Amino acid sequence: MITLGCRLGSHRVIEPKGALPQGAWKLDNTPHAYANEILCTVETLNVDSASFKQISDACGGDPQAIGAHILATVEKRGKQHNPVTGSGGMFVGRVRAIGSALAGRDDVAVGDRIASLVSLTLTPLHLEAVESVDTATGQVRVRGSAVLFESAIYARLPDDLPTDVALAVLDVAGAPAQVRRLARPGATVCVIGADGKSGLLACAQARERVGPTGRVVGIVPSAETPSAALLVEHRYVDHLAVADARDALAVVQLLPEALPEMADVVVNCVNVAGTELASILCCKDEGIVYFFSMATSFTAAALGAEGVGKDVTMMVGNGYAKGHAAVALQTLRDHPAIADYFIARYSRSS
Amino acid sequence: MITLGCRLGSHRVIEPKGALPQGAWKLDNTPHAYANEILCTVETLNVDSASFKQISDACGGDPQAIGAHILATVEKRGKQHNPVTGSGGMFVGRVRAIGSALAGRDDVAVGDRIASLVSLTLTPLHLEAVESVDTATGQVRVRGSAVLFESAIYARLPDDLPTDVALAVLDVAGAPAQVRRLARPGATVCVIGADGKSGLLACAQARERVGPTGRVVGIVPSAETPSAALLVEHRYVDHLAVADARDALAVVQLLPEALPEMADVVVNCVNVAGTELASILCCKDEGIVYFFSMATSFTAAALGAEGVGKDVTMMVGNGYAKGHAAVALQTLRDHPAIADYFIARYSRSS
Repeated sequence: MITLGCRLGSHRVIEPKGALPQGAWKLDNTPHAYANEILCTVETLNVDSASFKQISDACGGDPQAIGAHILATVEKRGKQHNPVTGSGGMFVGRVRAIGSALAGRDDVAVGDRIASLVSLTLTPLHLEAVESVDTATGQVRVRGSAVLFESAIYARLPDDLPTDVALAVLDVAGAPAQVRRLARPGATVCVIGADGKSGLLACAQARERVGPTGRVVGIVPSAETPSAALLVEHRYVDHLAVADARDALAVVQLLPEALPEMADVVVNCVNVAGTELASILCCKDEGIVYFFSMATSFTAAALGAEGVGKDVTMMVGNGYAKGHAAVALQTLRDHPAIADYFIARYSRSS
Repeated sequence: MITLGCRLGSHRVIEPKGALPQGAWKLDNTPHAYANEILCTVETLNVDSASFKQISDACGGDPQAIGAHILATVEKRGKQHNPVTGSGGMFVGRVRAIGSALAGRDDVAVGDRIASLVSLTLTPLHLEAVESVDTATGQVRVRGSAVLFESAIYARLPDDLPTDVALAVLDVAGAPAQVRRLARPGATVCVIGADGKSGLLACAQARERVGPTGRVVGIVPSAETPSAALLVEHRYVDHLAVADARDALAVVQLLPEALPEMADVVVNCVNVAGTELASILCCKDEGIVYFFSMATSFTAAALGAEGVGKDVTMMVGNGYAKGHAAVALQTLRDHPAIADYFIARYSRSS
């Protein structure tokens, strides 16, 4: 007998009835594949950084307590959906079973090691144990099972990169792919939070796309970090400005030197709240502000632009774009300095 | 001697130092114009509805007490910035003085009656008295003065429309102006919440722009309201679909009939939370979802699109766009049926 679920996963929603999985409070996490589902054995949860920071802060940075916190959330909700930040993350695992209705798929086979590219906020997850928590990376080793719906996206892990590195890249795959689309030759691109994971990849793509007549400006909280130094040394940025992006006035004071004509595209990659106004103020009228940070407040962005009379297009960072996994992984292959940095920082036990 | 302030108004911030006016606790409300400010005599405060409800509840609905409460807030903060809701509103008044550095502006003159289009949360306000409070509309008649910064936006009130009607239109002026930009001839536009104030104006602009080869679809919670009937009768929509937009599954079930190829542009004008996913699911891959609703959740939008594998561009509704006030008011003049509806619904004491 074939039991087909909804392609969006609504058959897994326990409450509230009629919701889709992401909006649901609780999912059915039974580790068994419907005919149009893929069942995976989970190895690692890559908790998104806004969520991990909130959990870590609530647990005083203690790995044991963080693990218990995550177990409790998954027990309660059937998914790792942080009720405070509203965000999730992704997982790495191995395909255990593919439902009969998906047997024709040529991008996945039983036994493949994959990364889920849909959020943990909508992924049925069943945990037996948390084995370890890496507070430096937000990676959590677990024993458990997860389910991918028919509409879900995922990527087979590449052979030429350590798993943790591939995962770190795939987690922010939307950023370099979107920057690749938005940055035009000759344009000025400003990346706020340029020294973070998504910021580095965004800078590399921006630098490639704007070309020699364009300009890439990075804004970072400190020039002393290895990633900030990398940006300057390898000329991924034409100018590096140091400011706390929550301090809109401080950022404005940088503009005459850093961005005398302001930016055509501003990419916000900062994982703290309160940086919307600074992002808007760095942008030209009729330019684009791309909010990739999950800490973005919709109303702060909307009212911020109105309050300063800025006619800018503000975009919500979409974690998915066609081919985004390939673009993100290729960014590393094309930029050995960034690959080295990612390997040094994210490669651990693979 | 010319004294220039900061164009964003930071020179008016009393505390905390280094904040911008909206984030500040207290502003300097001295009723005198710096060289790049405009000083206005205020007639009416249009307190935003969330704020007015909170004040009214705290005062047992008593107009006297509400007036005293507002006087006290403005006395304390130098602006009508409700510390509980964090929101403000707008004002109507007459221009009393224009600083010498702004003397060249051709859109405003001393004596003009204007509406401020920036929030009261960042507007220096000095009140002498509250004259009356209309608990039905949240309009508060006052004697006082307000200051507009160089970056502030405002609109001259038109002579051919009642003040309350003009205010109702200006309040959502961003929506028709943005739809005018985004809807191309031949496109399919879906307006969710088509029967509301911003929805009606968005439909009118969409209908005008997409032309006879395009298609406008409205989604409304009920077809029985006067505004829904107006949309159908005057052909502002080619198809009217009835669904609760919070129920993404119900909206998906409408698609085969309402939007068989989905929409190029989806405009979300719904003033309730939880409609992000339905909006995304109505949109074609590589289409645009424009979130005009302030009830939009950034993470629900970002993760929603990723979760269903949709490569769509999602935009944060910017309350401001160049010429938005003119576009919005002209929409009413060009569409008498909509003007009649607005006059019947919003005209009160003008």
